[in-house]
Order: sequence, then structure tokens, then C-alpha cells
Amino acid sequence: MPKSAEAQRIAEAVAEGMFARDHAAQGLGVTIVEMRPGYARLTMVVRQDMLNGHETLHGGFSFALADTAFAYACNSYNHVAVAAGCDIVYPAAGHLGDLLTAEAVEVHRAGRSGVYDVSVTTQNGEIVALFRGKSRVLQGEVVAGLTHHA
Amino acid sequence: MPKSAEAQRIAEAVAEGMFARDHAAQGLGVTIVEMRPGYARLTMVVRQDMLNGHETLHGGFSFALADTAFAYACNSYNHVAVAAGCDIVYPAAGHLGDLLTAEAVEVHRAGRSGVYDVSVTTQNGEIVALFRGKSRVLQGEVVAGLTHHA
Amino acid sequence: MPKSAEAQRIAEAVAEGMFARDHAAQGLGVTIVEMRPGYARLTMVVRQDMLNGHETLHGGFSFALADTAFAYACNSYNHVAVAAGCDIVYPAAGHLGDLLTAEAVEVHRAGRSGVYDVSVTTQNGEIVALFRGKSRVLQGEVVAGLTHHA
Amino acid sequence: MPKSAEAQRIAEAVAEGMFARDHAAQGLGVTIVEMRPGYARLTMVVRQDMLNGHETLHGGFSFALADTAFAYACNSYNHVAVAAGCDIVYPAAGHLGDLLTAEAVEVHRAGRSGVYDVSVTTQNGEIVALFRGKSRVLQGEVVAGLTHHA
Repeated sequence: MPKSAEAQRIAEAVAEGMFARDHAAQGLGVTIVEMRPGYARLTMVVRQDMLNGHETLHGGFSFALADTAFAYACNSYNHVAVAAGCDIVYPAAGHLGDLLTAEAVEVHRAGRSGVYDVSVTTQNGEIVALFRGKSRVLQGEVVAGLTHHA
Repeated sequence: MPKSAEAQRIAEAVAEGMFARDHAAQGLGVTIVEMRPGYARLTMVVRQDMLNGHETLHGGFSFALADTAFAYACNSYNHVAVAAGCDIVYPAAGHLGDLLTAEAVEVHRAGRSGVYDVSVTTQNGEIVALFRGKSRVLQGEVVAGLTHHA
Repeated sequence: MPKSAEAQRIAEAVAEGMFARDHAAQGLGVTIVEMRPGYARLTMVVRQDMLNGHETLHGGFSFALADTAFAYACNSYNHVAVAAGCDIVYPAAGHLGDLLTAEAVEVHRAGRSGVYDVSVTTQNGEIVALFRGKSRVLQGEVVAGLTHHA
Repeated sequence: MPKSAEAQRIAEAVAEGMFARDHAAQGLGVTIVEMRPGYARLTMVVRQDMLNGHETLHGGFSFALADTAFAYACNSYNHVAVAAGCDIVYPAAGHLGDLLTAEAVEVHRAGRSGVYDVSVTTQNGEIVALFRGKSRVLQGEVVAGLTHHA
């Protein structure tokens, strides 16, 4: 198998393996739409239990969606990676029923550190959140035995 | 009523009014333990649907708790305030059943801008998250008619 | 003059006007290489008085270069804009004599708020800093009388 | 020597050793006023070559001062520590001739990671910058042979 096809296969298998035990993403109604090495695209619909006291999307839930996209992107090589820190800004407010898309892109990766940018947009292209996550790679595989050495 | 008692009354009434319509905080099982002007202390128990694919607390939920404490603290004067940006680091991981306490403290407030620091700790005093939120005040009251001018 | 040519003319005139009174950028040896609406590219050479106690580029100076590129990009429309907040990570260390290039790109702009990403790279393409700046527009023009209404 | 006196001796010796080779801090006119384990207090006067095109203190220089205080605080144990990431907000503007004080306080330290908060204030108590730095400890001592094992 060519190297890039192998990397793609790993990214997809990691996403499947992570999602199966990811109670948080499942509970939020997150769908994984696209996975590539260092990249993830997810969707989520804004529900009533995601609204804050101002009747707009609670920042915690746009963060949770962005953070989930970040997690799938930075774990896509099948090396366990965790968030070292994140920051977020909210250019526009989300509303009940909005279909949100989170796209996580790798900005930099070297050694055990990485930087990923995530945008969260509505069905109208409005930017609900801009998120930057810094990752660190730990020991271990996300999905054990995924990388075969034949 | 002395000025500080009035400010305290307003902070508590704002919290009550916000929480009544805060579907997100209710759905997360958040309890408001203490409110003061510029200050909020909240608790939340880590549930299974808050765990990520590594079987620890999903960063989105520690963020959501911290962000909620921030929102109550920066709205405690009954002027509508929203998050302009936030950042978070995760010193330790949270686990199923942990009783988390989020304490939001006002670091700075001038004009329409504010800075609030939130710590999220477990029942054992471990720090699960350190969050810094920047707020901006908009037009309007959180709870209409709360501030009587007799 | 077509609208885009006019915007380009304004961006260049703003850069010239700002730089003439920008003692900090002059003192740092910053050169403005390219200006466009919402965009700036600058260079700076690492001097001995920019090294820290570990004999690498002091984070304050990679920040200063990135922050300067951000300032020129977010002021390029000739509306006075200031930093509301910034964050930075340092993927690699800079060294004495490095020729650094800072490129500021507009990620988002709506109303009075903007988000700009800046990368600072060496002559070898190593990333010394990734910076994200949030701007707010105030009253006033950067260069008075620049925008003619004939 | 009691343990806390030893820690204090180390913190002061680290500061002296770092400053002797810290061209950047020297060039900025920084004075180290107080050192303790996990703590540093520094001063700097705003000079003309620190002013931006708006004739206020360039954000890069308030950052450089805050970042320097952070560096001294997180290196005070004589284990080499570097910045993993920083963020800053600017509540008020600094002006020519202001005497700035930067105070760095340790918020959290565990394993190889730390979080430090720095405030930069003027002689009138105005807050010019609020900075949060995340540190990582590397191999090696800041000042070789400082910690005697007799």
C-alpha cells in the first residue's frame, strides 16, 4: 500500500476506534464527516440543552465541538495526543437548530508538539468559533495493533 | 440598604434569573453554590457522557463548567456580558464520578471589558482546568427591572 | 480608481504613515516588505540584544515582531485598531543572525472585531512563533485625510 | 540551612546568573527587584523607542517585560524551563516615562509543566498587561553546580 494510503487508512481507523468509546461526542450528537492525517471535519446540530441564559449557543458546546475536532485531528497518526492548552474566540452567536461544521487543520507538528486551528461555522457560513489547540503526544497507541509491521 | 448588600442582592437575583433559562447548565447538572459581585462558585459531577475516547473527562466539559462560572461572575452586575475570548489549560485529568468545583474570580474590570480567572478542582484539590475569560458588556439587563430606582 | 486598487493604495499609505512614527519597529530593525488590505509581511534580523539568558531569541522579541505585523495588518483599512488580546506559541528557537519573516493574515473581520494569524519563520523555514491576535476598531483614522471623498 | 532558605538562595543565584547573560533584559533596562521560588518582581521604564505608531507603549514591550518576569519565576528552581505558550491582554495603555512593575506568580506546577500569571502595572496602579505563561521544564540546570550535594 502506498504510504499516503496507509496514513489515510490509519486516520480513518483511529476515528472509528475513538468514536466507539467517545461518550461525550456521542452524547453531543457529533458526526465525523471526514478524516485525514492531521485533519478532521465534524458536524453537530444545536439543541435546546446547549443554549445558555441568553438563549444562544453556550460557549462550552461550541468549544466542545471544536475540541473534539482537534482531538480527532491530533490523534489521527495513532499516537495518543492530548490537549496542552486551547484558546477560543466567538465571532458570532449560534442558535437553536443550527447545523455546525467544525474543521480542524494542522498548522504545525514537530517532535511531540502540535498546533491545530479549528473553525466552527453555521450552515450560512457564519463563524461561530475560532479555536487554536496545542497538543502533546504521550506514550501509547490510540487503537492498539493498528499499525501492522509484516 | 447599604451599597454592598444591594450589589449582593443583585448578584444572587441575576444568578437565579439566568439559571432558570440556562438549559445548558441545567443539562450539565451544574449547581450554583455561591454568588457575589464579580464572583461565582459552581459544582458539577463528572458523568459517563462527559468522558472522551481516552476515558477521561472531555476537555469540552471542563471548559463548559469553567465557562459557566465565568458567565455568572461577569453577568453578576446585571449588565449583559458575553465572552470575547477564553483560554484554558488542563493540569490534571478528571475522572468518572469526580465532584468538580469551579471558582471564578474577577481579575480586572474597567469600562466594558473584564478579565476573569476560573479554576476547576476535584474533591481532592487536583486542578483539572485553569481558564481565563475576557468579557465584554453589551446593552441591556440580564434580569429586567432588577435594579429599582425608588 | 477601481475599489481594490484604492484599498491597496490605502494599505500602503497607512503602513508608511505608521512606520514614520513607530519608534519601536524602527528600533527593532523591522522592514515592511509587503502590505495588502488585511495583510502584512515584515522582516527582522535577530541581534545580540534580543537574546535571553539561554542564548536564544527572547520570546518578547519574536512576540514584538509578530505583534507589529498584526498591527499593520489590522490597521490597513485606515481605521484605528488596537490589540484586545494575543497568544503565542514557540515551536522552535531563534538564534543570533537569523533573518525572521512575519506574515500576518486576516482570519476574520466583522463589525469592530478581527482575528489575525501571524507566523514567524527563519530563513530555513523553521517556525519560531505562531501568534493569534484579536483586534478592536476604535474611532479615528490612522493617517488623517487619507480617504478622499471627491 | 533550612529548606526554604536554601530554595531562596537558589532563586536569587539563578536570577543573578541569568541576568548576567540576558542581553535582552539588560537592553530593555529591566531591574530585578525581588526573587523568590516561583516568583519574580521586575521594573522597567517606558522609553521612546518602546512607543508604537499610536504613541503608546508597543504591546511587544509590555509583553517582553511580562515574559521576562515569567522566565525568571519559572527558572527559579534552577531547572531550565522554557515557555510553551503565552497569552496577554492589555487593559490600559502605557505611556512614555511610565515606571512599570511586572509581578509573576506561580499558579500551578506539577511534573514538568507550570502556569504563571504576570500583571504589569504603572506607578499609578493601572494595569497595562495581564499575561499568562505556560512553562515546560527541559534537561539541565540554569546555573551549573548551584545545588551542592555535600
